[in-house]
Amino acid sequence: MTDMLELARAAKKAAIHLAATPHEARGAALLAFAETLRARQEEIFAANAADVEQARAEEFDGPLLKRLRFDAAKLGEVLEGIAALAELPDPIGMTQRATELSPGLNLYRVACPIGVIGVIFESRPDALAQIASLCLKSGNAVLLKGGREAARTNRALFAALVEATNAAGIPQGWAGLLESREEVAQMLRLDAYIDLIIPRGSNGFVRHIMENSRIPVLGHADGLCAVYIDRAADIDMAVRVAVDSKAQYVAVCNAAETLLVHREIAPKALPPLAQAMAKAGVRLKGCARTRALIPCEAAEDTDYDTEYLDYVMAVRVVDSLEEAVAHINAHGSGHTDCIVTADAGAARAFLALVDSAGVYHNCSTRFADGFRYGLGAEVGVATGKLHARGPMGLEGLCTYKYQLLGEGHTVAEFADGKRRFTHRAL
Amino acid sequence: MTDMLELARAAKKAAIHLAATPHEARGAALLAFAETLRARQEEIFAANAADVEQARAEEFDGPLLKRLRFDAAKLGEVLEGIAALAELPDPIGMTQRATELSPGLNLYRVACPIGVIGVIFESRPDALAQIASLCLKSGNAVLLKGGREAARTNRALFAALVEATNAAGIPQGWAGLLESREEVAQMLRLDAYIDLIIPRGSNGFVRHIMENSRIPVLGHADGLCAVYIDRAADIDMAVRVAVDSKAQYVAVCNAAETLLVHREIAPKALPPLAQAMAKAGVRLKGCARTRALIPCEAAEDTDYDTEYLDYVMAVRVVDSLEEAVAHINAHGSGHTDCIVTADAGAARAFLALVDSAGVYHNCSTRFADGFRYGLGAEVGVATGKLHARGPMGLEGLCTYKYQLLGEGHTVAEFADGKRRFTHRAL
Repeated sequence: MTDMLELARAAKKAAIHLAATPHEARGAALLAFAETLRARQEEIFAANAADVEQARAEEFDGPLLKRLRFDAAKLGEVLEGIAALAELPDPIGMTQRATELSPGLNLYRVACPIGVIGVIFESRPDALAQIASLCLKSGNAVLLKGGREAARTNRALFAALVEATNAAGIPQGWAGLLESREEVAQMLRLDAYIDLIIPRGSNGFVRHIMENSRIPVLGHADGLCAVYIDRAADIDMAVRVAVDSKAQYVAVCNAAETLLVHREIAPKALPPLAQAMAKAGVRLKGCARTRALIPCEAAEDTDYDTEYLDYVMAVRVVDSLEEAVAHINAHGSGHTDCIVTADAGAARAFLALVDSAGVYHNCSTRFADGFRYGLGAEVGVATGKLHARGPMGLEGLCTYKYQLLGEGHTVAEFADGKRRFTHRAL
Repeated sequence: MTDMLELARAAKKAAIHLAATPHEARGAALLAFAETLRARQEEIFAANAADVEQARAEEFDGPLLKRLRFDAAKLGEVLEGIAALAELPDPIGMTQRATELSPGLNLYRVACPIGVIGVIFESRPDALAQIASLCLKSGNAVLLKGGREAARTNRALFAALVEATNAAGIPQGWAGLLESREEVAQMLRLDAYIDLIIPRGSNGFVRHIMENSRIPVLGHADGLCAVYIDRAADIDMAVRVAVDSKAQYVAVCNAAETLLVHREIAPKALPPLAQAMAKAGVRLKGCARTRALIPCEAAEDTDYDTEYLDYVMAVRVVDSLEEAVAHINAHGSGHTDCIVTADAGAARAFLALVDSAGVYHNCSTRFADGFRYGLGAEVGVATGKLHARGPMGLEGLCTYKYQLLGEGHTVAEFADGKRRFTHRAL
């Protein structure tokens, strides 16, 4: 078993120097990583074939086998992703604000990496390459823990990463690979060395991480998104947006789980909604007022707090926009919620009052994603309110420091009135 | 005893609507608060006199009595602070980024309040007025817990706050007052309602809060700042900056506790440093190499990890800039650290490699403060790396949400290739 303490210490030491490497050095290392992946592809594919074979022997289901596969097509996507990432501007080093505090005393707020980031990700091995690339680009050291099923593939990818970045002069120890749950448990205790944990995966798993570490955690446990059909909605649009939000891909956090319908439009909207949902294979579970209008199963109270991740949707008729907002703020997970309406005032109120990372008007909740947002890449989606909220790109992996440059300035001179603060933007 | 759950629930409910109030309404409420403080000053001063009398009877020390006093001068400062705050631009509602994802589908990242903030502050009652004003300005609900010694004054100030803001139409319940430790303990468990805790006060107290809540905490437990005198330092400047950093005001987090001196300059720099420190009343505790050059007490290992908050300073001679950086990153608290040098390359390396919220060149660590930074006001100083780092102003009390405005857009149309992402900045 890896010595986690050693791994974390080495990562922290490397992080200090990695933070000071120029953009070109990080860019060259990224391209070297891509080159090494290409050169070692046969080895990686063989490792992956062994992982897939074992998963098949252990009778894992089809979707998992699909996610686990790392073939020429997946490699192509990874290489494309790395090339695109290398093209992005440097997320660190940028001066976010510059102020003259007093003549000769200048304050700069400068973007810098967070330090050491622990990422725990799902069974897709391409996630390893993607996350490691994002951390390298943003100057962060990274401790990686992938799915057990992908162990051989992850080892092969990690070997390529270490070989390429060491040769490119990136400080040794900047990346570490964890392989067991015990190591994860140890990592969660190393708050002296690790600055941030990003867990990806199932609800219960993420919640477990959040509750078992003093290290800050960014991510989301639940993705309980709602679509609210306002009384002033265009019904065709409402059907289109609701079906896409629910059924375009059900297994993800930005798929909608709850449909709220204003009582004034419910008699006209619910029948075509029910028809379209049935066509998309979605089973509805409704409140009493819903079931008075369309035939469907009865929803229990717990249905409105359930992330189905499946072809199931809870439906509730509400008396007003205010009731819809209150429902979402009470039962939602602060991820992404949408109003469908032609009433600009209702839309404004919904966007202002719903306390979620994403508040949408007339479009599918499925847009909540770093790539779709144009962030270049995505590390995860955060439903907390601090630091990063919603889809997190490179910016979520950065913080800032204040640099103050003086000429021997002392506070006593200001207290004495010999000098004065100017606070002039530079 | 207050029903904490009720208080927190009411605050969360109010926060939703407070977030949607226009800037003018929050500004008018701020000015109404100032007006009410002025109108009720006799009542407030009387409450304060009773607090001071009791503190004196309980034989509290002079500095505490001084901090506790709320008189016409303090009221004047508070009113001036509120007037200045009212003049600042609205920290919420601002569009931080706007992107066309595709024609007719526009994404806006908009600044918004965090929600409900719990602030636990020290014995100065003016802190209550200041913190409540900052939260009101930034549209956040706030739960306030002040020092026990200031209970009567805080009650009088809080009554003025509630009267003024209710009359000005701010949602009722937006501010709550806690009075006991039991209430604080309860508050720390209410993560369903409270979004952020800002603790101010002693090291041990802040650490206790950080370790006993699942609610995110922003603040600093330690302020262990260092001044490093590089071999290329101007000795006069080094003396000036070091003395100001240590002795201008010793009881605060941005006062320096450690002096690191490059061995090549130590023989020339340490004698005048020792003389100036002695004159400022500072007792030095040095390593063996320090004591070979100046007479002083021997430092123990623990001295380099001690926040004295007193006229005491640990001194260590180091072999190189790298050793100074490693010392600071290992023993410092990530608050504020300074290099004194005439060598631009050394300064650049120090600023890049020291992993602290403030990295200074040729100026006193005592500048690390929201007012001195020109942030308009300060809620606290954060030594964590996420969200806000260093002195926190209004911006630290804000987060953002993504608003996505479409015309019935679905992800399926993009998956089908019928529409394409443009990701054009607006």
